[in-house]
Formats: sequence, C-alpha cells, structure tokens
Amino acid sequence: MALIVQKYGGSSVADVECMQRVARRILKTKKAGNDVVVVVSAMGDTTDELVELAHKINPDPRERELDMLLASGEQISSAVLAMALHQLGADAVAMSGPQAGIFTDLFHTKAKIVEIRPQRILDQLRKGRIVIVAGFQGLNPEEDIATLGRGGSDTTAVALAAAIKADRCQILKDVEGVYTANPRVVERARKLDEIAYDEMLELASLGSEVLQSRAVEFAKKYSVVLEVVSSFVEKPGTLVREVDHMEDILVRGIAADKNQVKITLSGIPDQPGMAAKLFHELAGASINVDMIIQNVSAQGVTDLSFTVPASELTKTRKTLKAISSHVGDREPDIDADIAKVSIVGVGMRSHSGVAHQMFAALAKHKINIGMISTSEIKISVVIRKEHADDAVRVLHQTFGLDKKSATRPGKKPVKKSGSKKR
Amino acid sequence: MALIVQKYGGSSVADVECMQRVARRILKTKKAGNDVVVVVSAMGDTTDELVELAHKINPDPRERELDMLLASGEQISSAVLAMALHQLGADAVAMSGPQAGIFTDLFHTKAKIVEIRPQRILDQLRKGRIVIVAGFQGLNPEEDIATLGRGGSDTTAVALAAAIKADRCQILKDVEGVYTANPRVVERARKLDEIAYDEMLELASLGSEVLQSRAVEFAKKYSVVLEVVSSFVEKPGTLVREVDHMEDILVRGIAADKNQVKITLSGIPDQPGMAAKLFHELAGASINVDMIIQNVSAQGVTDLSFTVPASELTKTRKTLKAISSHVGDREPDIDADIAKVSIVGVGMRSHSGVAHQMFAALAKHKINIGMISTSEIKISVVIRKEHADDAVRVLHQTFGLDKKSATRPGKKPVKKSGSKKR
Repeated sequence: MALIVQKYGGSSVADVECMQRVARRILKTKKAGNDVVVVVSAMGDTTDELVELAHKINPDPRERELDMLLASGEQISSAVLAMALHQLGADAVAMSGPQAGIFTDLFHTKAKIVEIRPQRILDQLRKGRIVIVAGFQGLNPEEDIATLGRGGSDTTAVALAAAIKADRCQILKDVEGVYTANPRVVERARKLDEIAYDEMLELASLGSEVLQSRAVEFAKKYSVVLEVVSSFVEKPGTLVREVDHMEDILVRGIAADKNQVKITLSGIPDQPGMAAKLFHELAGASINVDMIIQNVSAQGVTDLSFTVPASELTKTRKTLKAISSHVGDREPDIDADIAKVSIVGVGMRSHSGVAHQMFAALAKHKINIGMISTSEIKISVVIRKEHADDAVRVLHQTFGLDKKSATRPGKKPVKKSGSKKR
Repeated sequence: MALIVQKYGGSSVADVECMQRVARRILKTKKAGNDVVVVVSAMGDTTDELVELAHKINPDPRERELDMLLASGEQISSAVLAMALHQLGADAVAMSGPQAGIFTDLFHTKAKIVEIRPQRILDQLRKGRIVIVAGFQGLNPEEDIATLGRGGSDTTAVALAAAIKADRCQILKDVEGVYTANPRVVERARKLDEIAYDEMLELASLGSEVLQSRAVEFAKKYSVVLEVVSSFVEKPGTLVREVDHMEDILVRGIAADKNQVKITLSGIPDQPGMAAKLFHELAGASINVDMIIQNVSAQGVTDLSFTVPASELTKTRKTLKAISSHVGDREPDIDADIAKVSIVGVGMRSHSGVAHQMFAALAKHKINIGMISTSEIKISVVIRKEHADDAVRVLHQTFGLDKKSATRPGKKPVKKSGSKKR
C-alpha cells in the first residue's frame, strides 16, 4: 500500500477512448491497494485550440484572461476523467487547482507554485476516494486563476506529491521513459533505467520534452521519487532520483533544442550597467535568456547576442522597445535558424577534456559552433539548425551512448545512459 | 449616466465575429457614459457539446462533476469577450461566477443563488472597467462550482443587477422582444412594448423561452427593470416591469410547451398520504411537477396522472422506482405526445368567463382537452401535441391579440398584447 501521484498528459486523455483507458489504469493502481491522486492535462490539443481562439480575437491577449481561458482545459479533463472512473464504479472526485489547495505567485501564464494546502485532497483520500486534480493551474494572491506555463501539469504532480508525501510520482507519457537521445533522430538511442535529478534538470531545460525542468527541481528539492513511464504499456520506465555510481557515466544524454532564437543588438552604447539593465528587464518580464555573447567594443559601441525561446520573441521585442533609451532603437537582428545541442552527465564534474572531445567531433564533421555555454554537468553549443540532427548522432557515437556498457575500467558494469525524449 | 447590466446569450457570442460585434455594442453602451456589467453565456453550442462529451463517458454523470465541466463554457466565453474588448482598446476584466461573488445552494445543475457579494465588481466599476461575468454559475457552500440550470445566465444577470442596484437589466436575444405568441406559429403575433412581471413569470414557466422564470421572479422581487432587446438591431424591445392599466388587457399572450410528458401511475394504493409522499419525493429531487389529476378510487386503488418536463423524465423514473413500496411497482405509463397551451393576462384577475371562452373556442375547433390547470392570471390546458399550433392560432384570434387595440370601452387605447418567444 503506497500513496501514488500519477500524471497523465494531454495525449493520454485526448478522446473518450483514451479517457476510458486511463480510468482503467488508475483503477488498477487503486485496486492494487494504493491511494491515488491523479493530475491531468487538458484533452489532446485543447490548450492549443484555446490559444488559437484567443489569438483570433486578440493577437496579444492579456495574460490574466488568457489564464482564465486556458485553465478551463484542465477543468474539463479532470471532470471528465472523474466521470469515467464513476462509470467503472470507482469513487472519484475532481478538483480544480484552487480547490486542490494550489497557490501561486502573480506571474500569469508562468506562475510558480508558492504553497499547497492539501487538506481537501487528504480528506478525500481518507474517504477512500481517488482524487483527480486539474493540472497546470492554481489560485494567485489576487484570487485569480493562474497557469504554470506549458508542461505545468508535471510541476503540479510533483508539488502535490511533495505536499502529501507521496511514495512515488509517476509521469505517464507516450514514451517509455527517458532516452540517451531522441530515438527519432538517433536509431541506437536507448531508454535509461535511471537518471540523476541534476542530469534530468539539465536535459529538461535543454530541450528534452520528457519533463519540465521546474518539475524536476521540485522533485530534487523535496526528494520526490519521479518515474517516467509509458501510458500505453505497463512496464518499468525511467526513475529520476539521487543514485550512487552516477559519476561512472561521463555523458548520460544528448539534447537538441530547435526552438531558440538568437537576438543580436548591434551598435549599442558600451557603458557600464547597460548589460545589467538589459538582462534585469528581460528577467523582470520572465524571459529565459540562455546564452550571451558580447563582442569587443569599438568606438564606444558594442554588439550583444543572446538566445531566448522562440515563444518569448514577441515579449522580448516589446521589452527591448521599452528600454530603447538604454540599448538603442536599432531593430534587433533575429536569427531563428539555430539549434542548441547539449551533452549532459554528472560524470563531467570529475572529468576534464569532455569539451575538447565534443568540439573536435563536431569540427571533424564540419559543424561550425556559434556560441558555447557550460555548467558543471553540461556543455551546450549553438549551431545552424540544419546541422542539429547530425550533431546529435555524431555526439551519441563519440561518447559511446549507443553501447550498452561504457563504464570506466575497474568497476562493475552499471546502467549507462544519457537522455532525450523521442 | 446609468448602471446597466447586459446579458448576452450563447447565440450572440457563437463565434469570433459575434464576439467582436457584441464587444462593439458593449463599448458603445460604455462610451454613452454608462457603467456596464456584462453577463455572458457559453459560446454557441458549447454547453450541449460538453453535455454530449459527458454522456459519451458516462450516461448518468454525477452532477458535481457535470457542473465543473459545464461551468467551463462560460469561463471561456467571459475570458474571450474581455479579450475582444481589450482589442478595441477598452478596459475590461473577466470574472467567473465565484469571483463575481455569486454564492449558491447545494443543488448541483439547478442551484439557486443565495447571496451575492458584489464588492469585487464594484471595485472594478469604480476603476472605470467593464466587468464581464461568466453566467450560469456560482460557488456552493462546499466550495464547489454549481450551475444554475439552463437559462441560468438570465438569473445571474438579474441577480447581479439587483445586488449592484443597476438602473436596468438588458437581456439581449436573437428576438426583438416578447411576442403575443410564437411568430413562427402565429403570423400576426406582435411584439409587446411592455409586460407585467406576473405575466412574464407565467409565460416563462409555460414554455416561452424568452426569459427564465427564476430571472423574472428575481426581477419582480427586487424591482429590477428588465428589458428584452435584440442583439442584432438596436431598437427598443419589451420592458418587463410593474405597470398601470395592465388590467385593461384580458389576455396578453399565449404560450405552448411541447416539452412536457404525462406520467400515469395506475392501480396505486389509495391510502392517505400516498400522494403527499409521491410529490414530496419528486420535489425533493427538484422535479417540477405541473398538472396533477387523480382518478376516482375503485376497490382501494386509484390512478394518478401528472406532467413533468421531458428533460426530467429519467430522474422521475428513478424517483418513482425508489418509492415503489408506496406507489406500487407497475411500470408508469409515459405519454410524450402532449402539449400544454396557456393563455396569460393579469386582466383575468378581475374578469370572469375567460376559461369558458377558451374551452369553447377549442371545442369549436375539435381540440380535445386532457387536463386543466389555472392560476389567478393564466389558464393552461393539456392537449394532443399535433393540435398545439392550431390551438395557439385559434386562441390568438379568439382573444383579439392580432388587433392593435383591444382595450375595454371607455378607456384610452393602451398597448395591448400577450407574449411568446418567436
């Protein structure tokens, strides 16, 4: 008997048949003697359709009303999933995010969970009920519905698992787990049995779509054992947790992110505090700036390039316009034909030479590197978008990810890996 | 400068173009110097589609989850309508029923508004904003979303108008006002300039679909001046209010309700309290029983017939089954081929002979009467469904509704009328 949180994504509940299948799976978990809390995303393409509806009415909708609109998608799916469980004779109760006691900050469309008051969920569990919670949403301090941003249902699930001290938080996906690389790009990509929080965190923020990075952060912070499993076949997936012998693996996975754009501001005044002002304003608008390059100054002006997610381009332009007195009012140069390719592994902490090996492999295949950023456990490069798939394949082979056992000598063989959603 | 509540129904906001048109109309009202609160229904057929989705999953969905599902329709339309106003440069804010301070009782799918705390609406009006409220919903004492039943958005509008002391509550429809009879049935049906609360109340509960009776009750109780106006053309509609010289009009309107079924229980034990038990249980299940006929008892058993809305047939059967120890377990006889035709007018209070005139006219046209019920200001008869349209036409002529002036002699001509939605 365990307390399990299960999260089902939009494609798992896309239509009536999917809902019924998911309901059967939930009931099976319940009948195995577990207490079950389910977090559910909006059905299929509902969120996209609602966004499209909003944009038809208003190309730049206010975020407060956009959140109110989008939150309805999960409200619908949670109610319908509860009905599917009732139809199977199960006792289930659906809750919106606010009803489930999820409280957020004020950042509409990208809110953070600041508190969970799980009393209502716990009361219902005590009555033997399955609790279905609408993912992706909570109540903000102004008593408005706020959404957590794309993938926010993962965060809802992990945060709830932490709040109710669940034994496990299962994220059910249309993939069987976390892979060494995208199997659609790399034929020999392999499913990982386990991966460290930090590695998953890097992969999530580097374009792997398996898990949202905030969800992984939450899981790490509260030691929630996460499991990425298939919603179609019942077999073990990938466990995300703190594990030993992690450092035996140099590179665990490779991610490619093709949804970044590079913005170059040229001829901006090269004065102290200019960059600080720029990135302060971008951060204030909740724009995730990743890589930054500033060119050598000439005659008091300088060039500055940085990357942002393509989805934040409009907001970025608006922010730049608002501070044109600081950064100049020249139209920024936008380059959307880029990709960020990254290698990730906690083993890099104790090994040197990995960057050299990566750059050499790409150079050998005539893939030119535009920008570089590194952390303790990852190296990212920006390259032309058309080289992205090639780069992933080259690196997958270079770091031996397609072989079952690539441990260091003198150790017993452990699962070797890496990661990327198919 | 007035404080106006406007209510737009589902067909008025069915698609993007409709939303934009409604937004322009709202803005025009605002720019004329009024404070405006808008109550909006779900877009087009959204509610029907959500009900259909629910029934595909579960033929008999739990009402709590059904309410959660259905309420999303108005949540969507209010958010989108606010976006349409923003696009026109107007300052508008969307609110769900709970956010607007609407509190209901515990009857899911048919909840009654028990309290309105309009502070949040008033705060927003004070800031010069247009407030868009999701109709049809409120928060119940268990902090669950409850819906007010079909047409509940009218009730939301009137209740809000009462709570914020609005000068007028406009119900915008795809008809130009209240008619003496359904213009699709009676060619010479005329739009009324005004109608008394009591008359509108009878018509609403007798199958006229122009206004929901609960909305009219609310309006009467709090003296809210209601106006039924066209959402397509801007011209005066029908005012619903307390007016003088009402008694000059004998019959103001004719309604036909083809969505009733007649249920006959035969051979039930004729013992004291049996009928009381039966109708107590039906009332407890929120089933609107209308007409009742009990046959003369023979050998300790009796027959009992009553009518209920067709939409409540399933619930009625279930209730009858639950009390079969009292009413017997014979399968009830269901007759769906009936119609209820009614004449309404406050003038009946002070005139006799109206019933005779009605029955004689129907008899002359060989229309047989099955059941009769009367109140101070209306007479209803149950007839075969295929005679319904004929009966309405016959009565429309009999009571002079197709003539412009049918006042009593010695009085100045006043608007003469009746009512029925087209």
